Amino acid sequence: MKKFISYFILMVTSFFCTTAFAQSSSSPMGFIGTHGQEQLLLEKRFDTGLHTQDMGVWMKRIAAYPHHVGSPYDRENAFFIDSLFTAWGYETQIDTYYVLFPTPKIRQLELIAPTKYQAVLMEKVIPGDPYTAQTKWQLPPYNAYSADGDITADLVYVNYGVPDDYKKLAEMGISVKGKIVIVKYGHSWRGIKPRLAYEHGAAGCIIYSDPKDDGYGQGDIYPAGAYKNPYSVQRGSVMNITIHPGDPLTPGYAATKDAKRLNMHETGVIKKIPVIPISYHDAEPLLAALGGPVVPESWRGGLPITYHAGPGPARVHLKLEFNWDIKPVYDVIATLKGIKYPDEWILRGNHEDAWVNGAADPVSGLVSELSEAKSLSDLVRNGWKPKRTIKYCVWDGEEPGLLGSTEWVEDHAKELKEHAVAYINSDNNGRGFLYTGGSHTLEKFFTQVAFSVKDPEKGISVAQRSLDAATLRGGKPVTDFHIDALGSGSDFTPFLQHLGIASMDIGFGGEDGGGEYHTMYDDYIDFTRFKDPGFHYEKALAEVAGTSVLRLANADILPFDFTHFYSTVNNYANEVQKLAENMREQTQTQNKQIEAGLYEKAGDPSKIFVVPRPEAKVPYFNFAPLLNALTSLKQSADKYQMMFDSLEIHPDENKIREINSLVYKSERYLTSGQGLPGRPWYKHLIYAPGFYTGYGVKTIPGVREAIEQREYNEVGPQMELLGKALMQFSDYVENMVKAGE
Amino acid sequence: MKKFISYFILMVTSFFCTTAFAQSSSSPMGFIGTHGQEQLLLEKRFDTGLHTQDMGVWMKRIAAYPHHVGSPYDRENAFFIDSLFTAWGYETQIDTYYVLFPTPKIRQLELIAPTKYQAVLMEKVIPGDPYTAQTKWQLPPYNAYSADGDITADLVYVNYGVPDDYKKLAEMGISVKGKIVIVKYGHSWRGIKPRLAYEHGAAGCIIYSDPKDDGYGQGDIYPAGAYKNPYSVQRGSVMNITIHPGDPLTPGYAATKDAKRLNMHETGVIKKIPVIPISYHDAEPLLAALGGPVVPESWRGGLPITYHAGPGPARVHLKLEFNWDIKPVYDVIATLKGIKYPDEWILRGNHEDAWVNGAADPVSGLVSELSEAKSLSDLVRNGWKPKRTIKYCVWDGEEPGLLGSTEWVEDHAKELKEHAVAYINSDNNGRGFLYTGGSHTLEKFFTQVAFSVKDPEKGISVAQRSLDAATLRGGKPVTDFHIDALGSGSDFTPFLQHLGIASMDIGFGGEDGGGEYHTMYDDYIDFTRFKDPGFHYEKALAEVAGTSVLRLANADILPFDFTHFYSTVNNYANEVQKLAENMREQTQTQNKQIEAGLYEKAGDPSKIFVVPRPEAKVPYFNFAPLLNALTSLKQSADKYQMMFDSLEIHPDENKIREINSLVYKSERYLTSGQGLPGRPWYKHLIYAPGFYTGYGVKTIPGVREAIEQREYNEVGPQMELLGKALMQFSDYVENMVKAGE
Repeated sequence: MKKFISYFILMVTSFFCTTAFAQSSSSPMGFIGTHGQEQLLLEKRFDTGLHTQDMGVWMKRIAAYPHHVGSPYDRENAFFIDSLFTAWGYETQIDTYYVLFPTPKIRQLELIAPTKYQAVLMEKVIPGDPYTAQTKWQLPPYNAYSADGDITADLVYVNYGVPDDYKKLAEMGISVKGKIVIVKYGHSWRGIKPRLAYEHGAAGCIIYSDPKDDGYGQGDIYPAGAYKNPYSVQRGSVMNITIHPGDPLTPGYAATKDAKRLNMHETGVIKKIPVIPISYHDAEPLLAALGGPVVPESWRGGLPITYHAGPGPARVHLKLEFNWDIKPVYDVIATLKGIKYPDEWILRGNHEDAWVNGAADPVSGLVSELSEAKSLSDLVRNGWKPKRTIKYCVWDGEEPGLLGSTEWVEDHAKELKEHAVAYINSDNNGRGFLYTGGSHTLEKFFTQVAFSVKDPEKGISVAQRSLDAATLRGGKPVTDFHIDALGSGSDFTPFLQHLGIASMDIGFGGEDGGGEYHTMYDDYIDFTRFKDPGFHYEKALAEVAGTSVLRLANADILPFDFTHFYSTVNNYANEVQKLAENMREQTQTQNKQIEAGLYEKAGDPSKIFVVPRPEAKVPYFNFAPLLNALTSLKQSADKYQMMFDSLEIHPDENKIREINSLVYKSERYLTSGQGLPGRPWYKHLIYAPGFYTGYGVKTIPGVREAIEQREYNEVGPQMELLGKALMQFSDYVENMVKAGE
Repeated sequence: MKKFISYFILMVTSFFCTTAFAQSSSSPMGFIGTHGQEQLLLEKRFDTGLHTQDMGVWMKRIAAYPHHVGSPYDRENAFFIDSLFTAWGYETQIDTYYVLFPTPKIRQLELIAPTKYQAVLMEKVIPGDPYTAQTKWQLPPYNAYSADGDITADLVYVNYGVPDDYKKLAEMGISVKGKIVIVKYGHSWRGIKPRLAYEHGAAGCIIYSDPKDDGYGQGDIYPAGAYKNPYSVQRGSVMNITIHPGDPLTPGYAATKDAKRLNMHETGVIKKIPVIPISYHDAEPLLAALGGPVVPESWRGGLPITYHAGPGPARVHLKLEFNWDIKPVYDVIATLKGIKYPDEWILRGNHEDAWVNGAADPVSGLVSELSEAKSLSDLVRNGWKPKRTIKYCVWDGEEPGLLGSTEWVEDHAKELKEHAVAYINSDNNGRGFLYTGGSHTLEKFFTQVAFSVKDPEKGISVAQRSLDAATLRGGKPVTDFHIDALGSGSDFTPFLQHLGIASMDIGFGGEDGGGEYHTMYDDYIDFTRFKDPGFHYEKALAEVAGTSVLRLANADILPFDFTHFYSTVNNYANEVQKLAENMREQTQTQNKQIEAGLYEKAGDPSKIFVVPRPEAKVPYFNFAPLLNALTSLKQSADKYQMMFDSLEIHPDENKIREINSLVYKSERYLTSGQGLPGRPWYKHLIYAPGFYTGYGVKTIPGVREAIEQREYNEVGPQMELLGKALMQFSDYVENMVKAGE
């Protein structure tokens, strides 16, 4: 569902030196004595069981036909995958849930003034790519969980439709009240765009892909190249997943056959206005017909027109109707019981459902997971057994809103809270650099994994290659490997952010650019031409994820660490303090500029400029609860590390068993029963998808968003809540130290 | 010739306070006792003599037909302007020079593979704009001083054709040797583009205006709006004016009728390869036919295509032939004798010749100058006389290469060195913010002028409005008004950079955006719709320039100052030291990255990347000669200011006369007889057009360019030369202090 496009911004490196983890022959974290070398040998055997040929065959099969929720081939895939796991000796089951999944009945968009244009709203069949001709089974371009509607209104262009864009429009004297907005894909999750439009009073929303962003402005277009041709359209969900993901009618509990369901109008996650995604072929006549001021430079796209803001004279008629059906989703769960700690579960997942054929999204990640499971079964056949239980999960219904994973997690919340050690996710994957996001209690562990897997193109470790690339980009040696914080956009969300289960999200990308995402061109032909022709990075993903699973499943002591977590959260605390300072300064400056009449004095009188209203002063906040908790956490984290190191050298079976049973539950203490303000489903106090960014993460979100959104009264209570949670977390770590000493 | 587009980057400001100069009622610098208030009254009378109606009438007349060098209407304008000055009571004369001025005979450009396209190479007549239909008199689009040539070669796209672009091409494994390059207008002066192409081995050069830069990407296109339509072409000279401007055949001396002339092939300023400017209509098929790698993101323009670098398969045939004729240029010089210091001359100039009708460039500035001269003549008629001699100059032949002004300056070099106090230039002008460049010995003086003229739209001073705009842009209060350093691109160059005459260049702009520059659409209709409909900013320019002239002509003590000059050059010294440091660090980093193989490790193996060769280490330089001279200058400048202040309070006629006779010649000490390396015509050691930027200035150019161009052996001698000149300058100031004490 999510694309790995932001990794360039987020990663960091080692230059002339190599870090302590750089040698893959060093003993993996948490393995005692000779177990380390045994584990490394096991991993080598595991790697030899991964075959790119398998992956190619499976992708061709699973992506052979459109397989969205409710489609025949989606169901067929579930049963095919189930049969694979069964053949490999796993205990398998298909858990079925019944979810609200709208599909389009009427889609109509026309420009009615000053000229006429009837939007095509269909992608074009490409000769030589037979997958694109499977029109019988394809869902046409639409945004799932748009409202039904039939409206006629003037058009306004709102750039990417993020909060700053609406500020700029206000300065230009333009309101979207009662208007239809046209907004570009990008810079925020698509579901945020119609929500913000609605909050500003818009009556409808058109989302299009500008050719500057992933069309001819980026590279040759499909089928000559990988980028969007004039008719390509990005489908996708606009459900309010930042409030909660999963079935809209059963928030917080499982959508079983007989579950009590909300009335459709009671949910908070279905859009209140009609929304439709269109191609740049369809967008051009609409944008060209706009009048009003020329938009700011950064708003301009790649169409050969002057971009105006409107409103009008472009007038648009938009009519949308959907079938609001309940459809089944099939989650395949395959279990391999652990022999020493059967009640400690390592979960690994990837979704199976796609918007159309979905070769890249999600099948590229799925074939890695299947390959891992197969190789593991070979090890089992040869007599090996994991210490802990491993569960391979293949989710359905991810695309509409993480439906399959969320319902399953809600269904099994109690057991998961008790047993889940960690969840490792992947989704779409391609050629390039390692991308990693996750819980920072696993950063140290994961760094070691990333240094142990070789990049298929260069022969150096995938971690080192990411670091080298970061060094080149920044021009300065980067010495530490870091993982990103997780927002949302794939199936880790219910595990991490609803239940507080330590999670990782892994993928490769950056040399696989293209515009196929959520279009009907994301098929086997496109993938094997442009994304990863030899499936080498799907193998690399299988090595990274598989090594992670194997180490977590087999470690003598679970490889959690709290020093990286401490320093990461400490950075967040510094960021948020800096954020408050900057906002205070900027607000003061802007208010002074307003008072001094600078806008009037400097402005061009031939252009409309509405001087912004002064903002309330940004008060000083009490950061003490957070900072005190961090001081305490630093101490307990350091002590835990000493205890852990000492336990590796002087192992004590009882203590180890005790630590293992405690340590993976530490992440639960980072959640709060009441959840985040306005979205109680989200319980994690460190990581959340941004309320106004969507997939993009907001770390320590309660405090950060209260400041960003200028809800100053909320800052104190959120700071208290966070400080208290971190203090309890610190106490929990301290107690483990006592248990381990 | 030059456009005021860079002012946004260069200016600075006052925020909540107003500076000492902010009150226009304070006494102007250099006026003693009651003279200050008398002068302010005089300026008020002067302002009432400026009439926007006059300016409109003159623009309509002067821009009525195309008036390039050698055209009948160019000559007619000279005589018309001469007649105006004569009628206003000036002693006038027309100085005629005979210059090499090529005009096109054959212009042919075609794409011959992989598809065929014959370039139009003509602009389109616009119904409703009769000026565009004067095809009989128009010069078609061409680049003056291109070579003749007939070549067929593969095409390479080189972005803006600046040095970094060629570095990037080398990394992509692309050479332009023997190829025809296609390059965008912008980011460097046009004449630099074919020179760099030639230095890299190219056989021909096509320059086009990308619609992103001044076409539909910026705003509505002509005639709906002010920006370039698909057929608009920017004409312009590609003479190597950074080596020397003026007639190519008479470098350094006047192109009189019988002057000894170089053979055409002996000049260093005519291009060695054929060059042609084209429209984006003509550029699109050529660019669309390119193969090779997709260009970097920052290279991509606004055409609806994927931009590739080539070379080929696009193959182009370019044939150009010119009439290499000697043509007359007519400089109109109108003199008003001073009564007290007749041998101290204040010069004011603007050019008259245009590429086509040239309403904005240059007539918008010219009508201000004429208006000033007329108002001054009214003052004279009412009994006033200036203390010093005022000369109004109207230059011909500016567009091809500052021909008229350069030949006149070379012709009168001896008298000018002796008598010229200052030269005040303008060129094209429009609605917006004050732009000023010049000698920093006049910064203090000019700041006071700029605070004394009211902005026509806002009623605050033009200085304050610029400052307020800078504050708004930067978000921080800007408290000082600064003038920019001058590069080239208009007629100040021979005065300032060849003879060392303190100069100013003045104009308004920033609310007059458009793409008419050097096209046939730069006409009266375009100007009065988009540039400055009411001529209010031409009046403001007349007030600023006129006030400057009046104050310089009437001051008791000439208002030069050395403290601003010192601190400005001190900033340059800091900049260049920082430049050397940064280059040293970057070179070291890049060399390490090359050695460490980072480019190979991080690169995408599916793309060609040629690892750059390590650069020689950047040595440490001896800045002492410069820094010692600056220390000395600071002292003498401070002393001069004290002396000046004291002389204003206790005036002494003899001392004042002595100071006046000395002070304006101080700028001569900033020149060197030997001139700059490789371009001896350029003698000023503080300001020069950049050898690789063109119009863009390089301050302390000998030292700066030696470092930038990695000619490290040149740095020491240039530092010596500069230090010595600044020391002599400082001694000269010191001597004036003694004379005034």
